[in-house]
Amino acid sequence: MTLLMLSYPERVEVFRRAFARDLPEVPFASDPAQIDPREVRYLITWNYPDNLAERYPNLDVIFSVGAGVDQMIQAQIPPRVKLVRMIESGLTSLVRDYVVMSVLALHRRLPAYIEQQRRREWVNLEFTWADQRRVSVLGLGELGQASLEALKHFGFRLAGWSRNPKEIEGIRSYHGREGLMAMLAETNILICLLPLTPETRHILNADLFAQLPQGASLVQAGRGGHLDQEALLEALNTGHLEAAFIDVTDPEPLPADHPLWSHPKVVLTPHVAGHTRAESSAEATIANLRCILAGEAPNGLVDRQRGY
Amino acid sequence: MTLLMLSYPERVEVFRRAFARDLPEVPFASDPAQIDPREVRYLITWNYPDNLAERYPNLDVIFSVGAGVDQMIQAQIPPRVKLVRMIESGLTSLVRDYVVMSVLALHRRLPAYIEQQRRREWVNLEFTWADQRRVSVLGLGELGQASLEALKHFGFRLAGWSRNPKEIEGIRSYHGREGLMAMLAETNILICLLPLTPETRHILNADLFAQLPQGASLVQAGRGGHLDQEALLEALNTGHLEAAFIDVTDPEPLPADHPLWSHPKVVLTPHVAGHTRAESSAEATIANLRCILAGEAPNGLVDRQRGY
Repeated sequence: MTLLMLSYPERVEVFRRAFARDLPEVPFASDPAQIDPREVRYLITWNYPDNLAERYPNLDVIFSVGAGVDQMIQAQIPPRVKLVRMIESGLTSLVRDYVVMSVLALHRRLPAYIEQQRRREWVNLEFTWADQRRVSVLGLGELGQASLEALKHFGFRLAGWSRNPKEIEGIRSYHGREGLMAMLAETNILICLLPLTPETRHILNADLFAQLPQGASLVQAGRGGHLDQEALLEALNTGHLEAAFIDVTDPEPLPADHPLWSHPKVVLTPHVAGHTRAESSAEATIANLRCILAGEAPNGLVDRQRGY
Repeated sequence: MTLLMLSYPERVEVFRRAFARDLPEVPFASDPAQIDPREVRYLITWNYPDNLAERYPNLDVIFSVGAGVDQMIQAQIPPRVKLVRMIESGLTSLVRDYVVMSVLALHRRLPAYIEQQRRREWVNLEFTWADQRRVSVLGLGELGQASLEALKHFGFRLAGWSRNPKEIEGIRSYHGREGLMAMLAETNILICLLPLTPETRHILNADLFAQLPQGASLVQAGRGGHLDQEALLEALNTGHLEAAFIDVTDPEPLPADHPLWSHPKVVLTPHVAGHTRAESSAEATIANLRCILAGEAPNGLVDRQRGY
């Protein structure tokens, strides 16, 4: 029984020290050349090349080092191998902070003020109080719930949407297709934190934007594949949407000639809303491996049908 | 006994309705031509022209409609007249939200990403975790405390400085000149929420910036007079300071040829961090007038020597 970690040397060192301290009974390896591949039961990785199943015939669990598993869900992972996505406090706090920053910036019309600054214009723009704004999150997993929890401090009316019904204190929650339409109609700032699956691909499209009230804004911190970029540009250009914070694009990096780069209503960041923190990721992985060794389900076990 | 309010018609109407409902025993006026000036005991206003003392010889209390009173502290207000600044929940929440937005944006290097976006560059910049950042507030009044309270949610190391010692849970607090130097040496993001007084004029100067560690950032949401703008430009140009959110300037509006407008490390907003909300301001004023009628001290009574 060996655990193999494929990652950057700095991250591997953090995991190696944490495993040596907290789970020394599991042999930890990071160099495939130094081990018998038949010994590998647990794999920590970001990518999953299709030939891994043959190379590691006794693989039991793959731990993704990222929150999403859309990069490996398409791969030929044998059904007997468990796939676990990363749920850890460092990543959650980063995404939450990016969301709160973006929501407050859209609420206070920062993109328009940045444009005014470019034109050297000192003009006080019209303003709406937070208690007159509905802020809604697509996706009520770890990241969506942490974002909503932080947003409670600012007095917004809050809502969230998920595939299945969820009850969260202080949040108006919606589910299913009809729930989505009902929520959008009242949403002034929409945040996408969904997992990318065949069902959610291009969910942020012209139809969805049309459901939002005039002047709504978008925070896109999901995956590039969620957004129909042409539809967003169109909605911004007609003035139906006021502004957007976009952290993920399709493809990444965004090509230099793409109109999103220079759109005056878009703040574009290069996929930096969230990344995992080595220390807390190691802790979360150790806790999950302990669950697995005890025969329990790990936190973040992927439903391969559902896609997350 | 009459209360005279000098303000915009919309704001006057909100106050008029609130007074009629909650304090009908105090006659409310908004048109100086319609009243006997000797009847005016209470005045709600933003500006205080020097001749008001003669025009209203029986004036007892002036309520500022703004948080700061630097616009009227220089005026010839007779010593027997009380001056009360506005402390009300609408303004407090706005300033808090602007501060949290700016701190998160500086923490996540948004000014640098905005610059990258202009250059169509997709580069992941170096990042520091929130628990490795010290965020410090100059000014521990209503606005400073509300800002720190909201910032607690994000895991920063927090500090605050005030003229006199204050104890605030979860905040490292400093006071006096020595305390200021000690706090600055450890501060990565500095927020100015001080009142403007002769003592605090140009407090944000070259000496203060030199005390901050390399790469620190500034949120200036106090008054334009706090900041030596040339010193800020110099500190940004040498790279000693990384970036700044500037909401107030001297003069306002900032002249179109001023270099702050186009500085790539500056996000400039046109004095929009805070403004009072008519409804909550009316409530706060009524509560304060009740205190005064009962012989108690109102919230926000200005110490004329101290200047706030």
